[in-house]
Amino acid sequence: MRFGINFFPTLGPADRSAAQYYDECLRLTELADELGYHHVKTVEHYFFPYGGYSPDPVTFLAAASARTRRLRLVTGAVIPAFTHPVKLAAKLAMLDNISRGRLDVGFGRAFLPDEFEAFQVPIDESRDRFDENVEAIRRLWSEEDLLWRGRFHQFGPVTLLPRPYQEPHPPILVAAAFTPASCERAGRNGYGLLLVPSISSRERVQEMLRLYRAARAEAGHDPQKGQIHMSYLAAIAEDGAQARRAGQEQSEHYSARLVDAVASWGRTRSDAYAGYERLVEQVRKTDYWQQLAENKVLAGTPDEVAGQLEAIREWFGDVTVSLQVNSGTTSYEEAERSLRLFADHVLPRLDTTAPAHA
Amino acid sequence: MRFGINFFPTLGPADRSAAQYYDECLRLTELADELGYHHVKTVEHYFFPYGGYSPDPVTFLAAASARTRRLRLVTGAVIPAFTHPVKLAAKLAMLDNISRGRLDVGFGRAFLPDEFEAFQVPIDESRDRFDENVEAIRRLWSEEDLLWRGRFHQFGPVTLLPRPYQEPHPPILVAAAFTPASCERAGRNGYGLLLVPSISSRERVQEMLRLYRAARAEAGHDPQKGQIHMSYLAAIAEDGAQARRAGQEQSEHYSARLVDAVASWGRTRSDAYAGYERLVEQVRKTDYWQQLAENKVLAGTPDEVAGQLEAIREWFGDVTVSLQVNSGTTSYEEAERSLRLFADHVLPRLDTTAPAHA
Ligand SMILES: [Ca+2]
Ligand SMILES: [Ca+2]
Ligand SMILES: [Ca+2]
Ligand SMILES: [Ca+2]
Ligand SMILES: [Ca+2]
Ligand SMILES: [Ca+2]
Repeated sequence: MRFGINFFPTLGPADRSAAQYYDECLRLTELADELGYHHVKTVEHYFFPYGGYSPDPVTFLAAASARTRRLRLVTGAVIPAFTHPVKLAAKLAMLDNISRGRLDVGFGRAFLPDEFEAFQVPIDESRDRFDENVEAIRRLWSEEDLLWRGRFHQFGPVTLLPRPYQEPHPPILVAAAFTPASCERAGRNGYGLLLVPSISSRERVQEMLRLYRAARAEAGHDPQKGQIHMSYLAAIAEDGAQARRAGQEQSEHYSARLVDAVASWGRTRSDAYAGYERLVEQVRKTDYWQQLAENKVLAGTPDEVAGQLEAIREWFGDVTVSLQVNSGTTSYEEAERSLRLFADHVLPRLDTTAPAHA
Repeated sequence: MRFGINFFPTLGPADRSAAQYYDECLRLTELADELGYHHVKTVEHYFFPYGGYSPDPVTFLAAASARTRRLRLVTGAVIPAFTHPVKLAAKLAMLDNISRGRLDVGFGRAFLPDEFEAFQVPIDESRDRFDENVEAIRRLWSEEDLLWRGRFHQFGPVTLLPRPYQEPHPPILVAAAFTPASCERAGRNGYGLLLVPSISSRERVQEMLRLYRAARAEAGHDPQKGQIHMSYLAAIAEDGAQARRAGQEQSEHYSARLVDAVASWGRTRSDAYAGYERLVEQVRKTDYWQQLAENKVLAGTPDEVAGQLEAIREWFGDVTVSLQVNSGTTSYEEAERSLRLFADHVLPRLDTTAPAHA
């Protein structure tokens, strides 16, 4: 297994200033680099305390690249539907060069109606736009004199500058929330996967992974490659009860902010998002203690969290895990303590850097 | 006067790798911060060695912010027509927070037909799009629950996150190449100005400044405020002849790259860009020695360059000057030497940080 950190801010100006939040995240990123973590990752969201402090992952990761030497920089994810493919391909290629090849690019479809409305992108087109734009970006990275005649964008012949640092391009990952078809497509294309195990049952995640791995194998992609990223809220302390309380605070705060953000789903329906309408209801009835028991939140002593991760490895294989330790309710000191305890006591036991189970 | 550095890359993979170029620029930026320069600035361009290594100024400046403590970070310029106003406002606000208020935002209209074609933005709409998007971004920064019903974009009510660090928002500057009307509008709106004195006669620049300052005064904006940025190719050495040769190499290289990039103007006409059709011809007949004599390139010993700047101050007032020392032909060592010599011998004589002539 490999371990990194994920920043999914669930706060707004009433909670903590953005300047303070970024400063804390950059300090934690520097620390994670020193402590031997594998990656730093962050989201793209807008307007709401649910993610809204992170509207442009590349901007944050560019600052992070200048403060780190080894960490992989992961977009978790950028949203191709909201940025022109030339623009997105180009700034990611800049970051790949600035970091000398430390970039992994996760792409997401997005799911919040208010975001689609603001960008005037019909939510029903989200899958088609995702597919077209990811492919356009991949080809802008890989080819010169690219002539693109898609449904949503037409351009060229153009040669993107700068060319990516990694050959032929940075590793690509695709975010999948509930949709098994997204996992199959990612596998078929040889891309990695970004999953959110906290919002699905273990069985559903296992089914998604089965489909993903089968599609990879069927399409002839190296079963050893294709990173599978999973993000978890995490709180670790010598005192297990204290860690669990901190985990509860984070988890309930996260759920409340997600409920606010998805509230608009009450009045939106789209065939492209079957099941999302029930998201509000599902998140509202989330029970922290059940989440903890089902290993959807990592909280406890280093030993307890190591035990949780051993179960996760048994269920899902040698996946890449991102710890979410600074969402907005945590103090910097708590977040730093979690990262240090994990690095000292958990990482050495589980960081196999072995190839993923196929 | 105030002095900073401007990165306008005029190189491609055949000249120098992008990773090496960014590394050199970030080292020069760190040095400029230590040496007491005022700002670092960079452009937005695509596809061609003329600027193409800098398709996203914010990505570069975010990395630069993490390596500096005092430098102002200046977009010179970002192009609102090529990025959705929500996206552009949001990532600039992130950078403003990450840098704790060190951001100055220059906006440009763009002028290369191939760029407009790639983004499928009609070049004839460039001024209307510029005006609408700059205003949308200013209001996203300044207001909550903004409802925007423009000609090109409609959104809201939305509240941008993060809010900018500077109140009510980062200083705004507007790029003007030849168009006096752009200067008047910038002055009326209380914005600063980004000028390229090398492509116009002294008299024309003086006329643009006169219109700008008069419009500012007429609209009641503080005549002491409103930065006027001017970028100059610069090469400084103890040996004046050596510096002039280095300046010649840079200048002729820059002109050749601009000719390539604007070649497509030979087949494009737009009422919105009167005079641009003659740009190729004008750039082709550029004579370096005449440019040097007219103080459109800064090259020579520290004394000689100080003399050039004294003339510039007499002509244009206490403007903010950006030195362009690393365009693609210069070695890192030459660029560093220019920055050091300027800081040691020229900056102390001319860095007045006095208010601009009104
Ligand atoms: Ca709405
Ligand atoms: Ca204890
Ligand atoms: Ca280890
Ligand atoms: Ca063309
Ligand atoms: Ca000498
Ligand atoms: Ca000084």
